[in-house]
Amino acid sequence: MAQTKKAAAKTKAPKAPKPHALDIPVPPRAKLDPDTQAYFAKCDEKLGYVPNVLASYSFDAKKLRGFSEMYNELMLAPSGLSKLEREMIAVAVSSINHCYYCLTAHGAAVRALSGDPKLGEQMVMNYRVADLTPKMRAALDFAAKLTESPDKMVEADRAALRKAGWSDRDIWDIAATASFFNMSNRMAAAIEMMPNDEYHNAAR
Amino acid sequence: MAQTKKAAAKTKAPKAPKPHALDIPVPPRAKLDPDTQAYFAKCDEKLGYVPNVLASYSFDAKKLRGFSEMYNELMLAPSGLSKLEREMIAVAVSSINHCYYCLTAHGAAVRALSGDPKLGEQMVMNYRVADLTPKMRAALDFAAKLTESPDKMVEADRAALRKAGWSDRDIWDIAATASFFNMSNRMAAAIEMMPNDEYHNAAR
Amino acid sequence: MAQTKKAAAKTKAPKAPKPHALDIPVPPRAKLDPDTQAYFAKCDEKLGYVPNVLASYSFDAKKLRGFSEMYNELMLAPSGLSKLEREMIAVAVSSINHCYYCLTAHGAAVRALSGDPKLGEQMVMNYRVADLTPKMRAALDFAAKLTESPDKMVEADRAALRKAGWSDRDIWDIAATASFFNMSNRMAAAIEMMPNDEYHNAAR
Amino acid sequence: MAQTKKAAAKTKAPKAPKPHALDIPVPPRAKLDPDTQAYFAKCDEKLGYVPNVLASYSFDAKKLRGFSEMYNELMLAPSGLSKLEREMIAVAVSSINHCYYCLTAHGAAVRALSGDPKLGEQMVMNYRVADLTPKMRAALDFAAKLTESPDKMVEADRAALRKAGWSDRDIWDIAATASFFNMSNRMAAAIEMMPNDEYHNAAR
Amino acid sequence: MAQTKKAAAKTKAPKAPKPHALDIPVPPRAKLDPDTQAYFAKCDEKLGYVPNVLASYSFDAKKLRGFSEMYNELMLAPSGLSKLEREMIAVAVSSINHCYYCLTAHGAAVRALSGDPKLGEQMVMNYRVADLTPKMRAALDFAAKLTESPDKMVEADRAALRKAGWSDRDIWDIAATASFFNMSNRMAAAIEMMPNDEYHNAAR
Amino acid sequence: MAQTKKAAAKTKAPKAPKPHALDIPVPPRAKLDPDTQAYFAKCDEKLGYVPNVLASYSFDAKKLRGFSEMYNELMLAPSGLSKLEREMIAVAVSSINHCYYCLTAHGAAVRALSGDPKLGEQMVMNYRVADLTPKMRAALDFAAKLTESPDKMVEADRAALRKAGWSDRDIWDIAATASFFNMSNRMAAAIEMMPNDEYHNAAR
Repeated sequence: MAQTKKAAAKTKAPKAPKPHALDIPVPPRAKLDPDTQAYFAKCDEKLGYVPNVLASYSFDAKKLRGFSEMYNELMLAPSGLSKLEREMIAVAVSSINHCYYCLTAHGAAVRALSGDPKLGEQMVMNYRVADLTPKMRAALDFAAKLTESPDKMVEADRAALRKAGWSDRDIWDIAATASFFNMSNRMAAAIEMMPNDEYHNAAR
Repeated sequence: MAQTKKAAAKTKAPKAPKPHALDIPVPPRAKLDPDTQAYFAKCDEKLGYVPNVLASYSFDAKKLRGFSEMYNELMLAPSGLSKLEREMIAVAVSSINHCYYCLTAHGAAVRALSGDPKLGEQMVMNYRVADLTPKMRAALDFAAKLTESPDKMVEADRAALRKAGWSDRDIWDIAATASFFNMSNRMAAAIEMMPNDEYHNAAR
Repeated sequence: MAQTKKAAAKTKAPKAPKPHALDIPVPPRAKLDPDTQAYFAKCDEKLGYVPNVLASYSFDAKKLRGFSEMYNELMLAPSGLSKLEREMIAVAVSSINHCYYCLTAHGAAVRALSGDPKLGEQMVMNYRVADLTPKMRAALDFAAKLTESPDKMVEADRAALRKAGWSDRDIWDIAATASFFNMSNRMAAAIEMMPNDEYHNAAR
Repeated sequence: MAQTKKAAAKTKAPKAPKPHALDIPVPPRAKLDPDTQAYFAKCDEKLGYVPNVLASYSFDAKKLRGFSEMYNELMLAPSGLSKLEREMIAVAVSSINHCYYCLTAHGAAVRALSGDPKLGEQMVMNYRVADLTPKMRAALDFAAKLTESPDKMVEADRAALRKAGWSDRDIWDIAATASFFNMSNRMAAAIEMMPNDEYHNAAR
Repeated sequence: MAQTKKAAAKTKAPKAPKPHALDIPVPPRAKLDPDTQAYFAKCDEKLGYVPNVLASYSFDAKKLRGFSEMYNELMLAPSGLSKLEREMIAVAVSSINHCYYCLTAHGAAVRALSGDPKLGEQMVMNYRVADLTPKMRAALDFAAKLTESPDKMVEADRAALRKAGWSDRDIWDIAATASFFNMSNRMAAAIEMMPNDEYHNAAR
Repeated sequence: MAQTKKAAAKTKAPKAPKPHALDIPVPPRAKLDPDTQAYFAKCDEKLGYVPNVLASYSFDAKKLRGFSEMYNELMLAPSGLSKLEREMIAVAVSSINHCYYCLTAHGAAVRALSGDPKLGEQMVMNYRVADLTPKMRAALDFAAKLTESPDKMVEADRAALRKAGWSDRDIWDIAATASFFNMSNRMAAAIEMMPNDEYHNAAR
């Protein structure tokens, strides 16, 4: 009988766990606007799931679009920083802020993009132990200071990036990435956003 | 003769001061895409100037659109929080981060929306001295903790907001506003973004 | 009848709002000792009002005299620092401590002495954005470190001031000013001292 | 011959060690104004020496008078707090700020006034380990918060003192004492003021 | 030929990478005293490798014994806390201190002992997101406060543990575990101790 | 009769005060294992008392041995650092952590080993005021940073020690001493361990 029960369970659509602690239900797929449905279908296809951050924002199509356009432009658009470098900044910032969601999701991205699981762990735990180029190290030091004491940023901080080989246009992207994750880390903390389980084993 | 000089000055195109410390020039208006031109024309009409944050992002139309859509949705869309309440959160967060750009621009917004210049100053200096409802005070206390120690947010922090009278949907907006300005404050600090002079005297 | 009431109200001496949160009433002018009465009359004449910090101390003539002698010597006596430079230190320190009273009162003083309202705002918000001489910047950096981590002051901090062009006698005055406002900021915070409304619009 | 040398040494005026790190010489006694001479003579008589803080300020009679009047009023005038209680606050604050001068001088005062050397050490090291009345403990907790985060003082902090048995007039004195030592600690740190050797063994 | 090379390589003793940044070589096994040789052989047998922390200490048999006796007593001896609970404290403390070595090694231990890889990640990233009993949560909150502000521990902190169901003997073990990892985290940070690669994939 | 009572009292074995705040009684000497009895007898002989830290651990012979072996190896074994230098590090670390037990016990050790009571006080209060060799100052600066921000230790910190004249083997001992007291300080804080009264007057 237990077996029958189990078999039955398999026929039911799995109920997604709540992606955060607020009482703002994730709308069923069928109720989403066509754009969002298409976006989520693409997620399913590419990743096998819809990241909980997107599910969380999906109660309001405009908020979802605002967030994802900014995010996609930041992390995926052409830049003097590779996608991996941007993900490394994302994780180093999230480590300082101890953001479970972002460390899980973007730690997986660093593992995947680098093919180096240890590098992902190092960004999660303490970027200072990683064996990096001085140029990349300078970017992470800038991101860390910007995270911890934004009030103390001065011209010397930008000069250090230039000296390490980054252009002014690159500095914009380093700054924008570090700043964005200081937002995302806080949003996730404020509502206790939980990452999809799939991230944990990805790219180990 | 002084008058002549003044008249002459008016015929010259005023050269906008650099809005930030990076060597990423603001494109001339004529070179902007039509959407951005229309957006900036609307700023000129409504405010008399284009806020430097928008000018700063205008080197890349997609980045500008991502930023402004997220911003407009956050600060202007219907919400359980009034526009003034959202601006108060923006300024209280910016005060903790000592962000010159946001304190100047959004301090002016608090003065304008409240008709109470003193309230604007209090948000800039220390929100704890303002004579607020316990409900609004709870929102600012939540925003302050989220700014200073995002790693320590717990269910009790959300419970305190609910007890003060905020709905879960309101908590999303409080969290989103505080989080967004933790991004903007850092972006402004990283590139030393300077506010338009017009803000200083506005709504005094 | 409402008009009559209003007219009547005008004949009454306006009751000053409480200058702080403690139940220590400000004595009526007539009950003050002659020295204090003369001092306050001079304030009325020069400023148009008695600063609330003085009203707060007036319950005890000796405490008032101790405070004002030290204050006047510090801020008004001949010094290698101009009055404006001393006020700038006062405001930069008060910004770190988020002191509403001192930011309001001394922010107004920076505006008045400099004739540059923006400079006043910059000291209130974050002195690092202001366009200052390296010499003045060094003084503010010293004052900021002294405020945030007095335990870590070392000879190198004094050496930096000397290198920037300050004499040892000037260092005394920089130190004394920064130290004094670390006292005043805390006294104001402890008793929630409220600044006179007049400061807000002064020298805009 | 050694004896002769020693006798000779006694005839020479002992040269006082420099009381701080700035090049602002302590004027010889004979050059001081009569009031200061009288004040220092009284110190010699009562303590056997002139405290280095007074020697440091003696280069300017007005600064010395401003400082000492404020200090004497604060620590010696009638108050709802005993002199010992005020000294305990002074030392607890100086412990947080790690001020060598004040911990040495006022640690000795706690030992002397209490007749309990261990209490003096506890105030120097960590007031939380001392066996105090809840009333005194509340005063020190208030002083500690005022020292560490003046920006976060709120009505609840004053309410806690009232509940512990302090009057509003007492709160003034607790606040004034804690605030004053936040000034003195920083002045001493800024100029590396050194305490007289006599304090170390006093009242052990 | 490549295969021959590879085969040849297998016949060579693999050279262990340096376990830390100091120039204190790890002695070859044959030079270790018999006790250490036996201890390391047991590590090889049980774990498949000698943890780098033990290799690091092996330059001095007494230091190695002192460290490992204290460690083994702490983490393996009978206790009111399970081994998993002790490892969770170890990782939560190491997360605050951002210790790469301990997060890697003890994160793996939490995964192994709990059979719940996600729990291991949560301890590494932010213990506050984990779904724990109030009793275990209280232990981690105590450990976190002890790590961040040991100077502020008071009787109320111990009372909270007792109220959550811990005995005084348990409090000793909670305190001892949290304290020990505040030592180990710093030793690892000071010499940049690197964890064995084997930890990364263990118990995923 | 009072005298009789007093005389009677003298015949009773004095009951040792509780060495800490937990309900874990110190076993009577006769119940301790022979090794511990011998160790404590040696303490009595050498010091005149058993340090409370040892009494505290004596409820479990293995824990006591683990702690004392590690401690003795650290503080008494041959090293490139003198015993005084190790004690100075112990006290400087304990000062940052405001640990009453360690400041009392090891402050006395600095006084005894140096014959310079003032040096002991300076380590307790703020090591930066002491007149030290650049080499010793570098060691204390390293220990302070390791105590306050272990996550930020980098190669440059070790390089500074080497430049100041310390060998890599010395760096191990500096790191180990600073790390150990970060453990001991927290253990003492967690259980409110109280130092023996004898320390207060020792070596003044």
